[in-house]
Amino acid sequence: MSSPEALLRHCPHFQVAIELVGRRWNGVILLALARGATRYGELRDAVPGLSERLLAQRLRELESSGVVAREVRPTTPVQIRYSLTESGTALVEAMRPLMQWADRWADQSAM
Amino acid sequence: MSSPEALLRHCPHFQVAIELVGRRWNGVILLALARGATRYGELRDAVPGLSERLLAQRLRELESSGVVAREVRPTTPVQIRYSLTESGTALVEAMRPLMQWADRWADQSAM
Repeated sequence: MSSPEALLRHCPHFQVAIELVGRRWNGVILLALARGATRYGELRDAVPGLSERLLAQRLRELESSGVVAREVRPTTPVQIRYSLTESGTALVEAMRPLMQWADRWADQSAM
Repeated sequence: MSSPEALLRHCPHFQVAIELVGRRWNGVILLALARGATRYGELRDAVPGLSERLLAQRLRELESSGVVAREVRPTTPVQIRYSLTESGTALVEAMRPLMQWADRWADQSAM
């Protein structure tokens, strides 16, 4: 067995990552971006039930976490485009095994 | 792009899975079991800072979620052994990419 220290070494970062993808709506927003949504309206349409206010708030949080980039195009009117950063793309890939686990197992447990 | 329905179809299960591994201490308890801990005392020692009461509670939750098995051996005194179930083993494997993401990226973001 590894030492307790080795086990715990990963914990604070893991907890941050889990809370980031686990916060309600963040997972589906990240997935929508991974599947090609770039505009605010596309994201809104991709996540039925999510209010505009909450979508805006989540996007700001994801941006400040470094996983989503917000680009302002200096057209008239300005266009805003959202995309995954390199770490955001990696995060979506890292989420997939857990999604697959949930699909495979969640129905069979008492959860 | 996939439909919103397809995006959302995974969500309830994914949310359950995220909350299961994201609940404080669960990740490290699952990792300790994956690395060979089987007795209550080993688990306690593997997770410094976790109270006995909370460890017992978390083990019950993990057991009722179907990811941890509790075996009572009819010796005198009885011996209790904990282990990962098949879905628990799969869950630990599914957590690893997210742990690796956290190790790689969490320091570099504003999280």
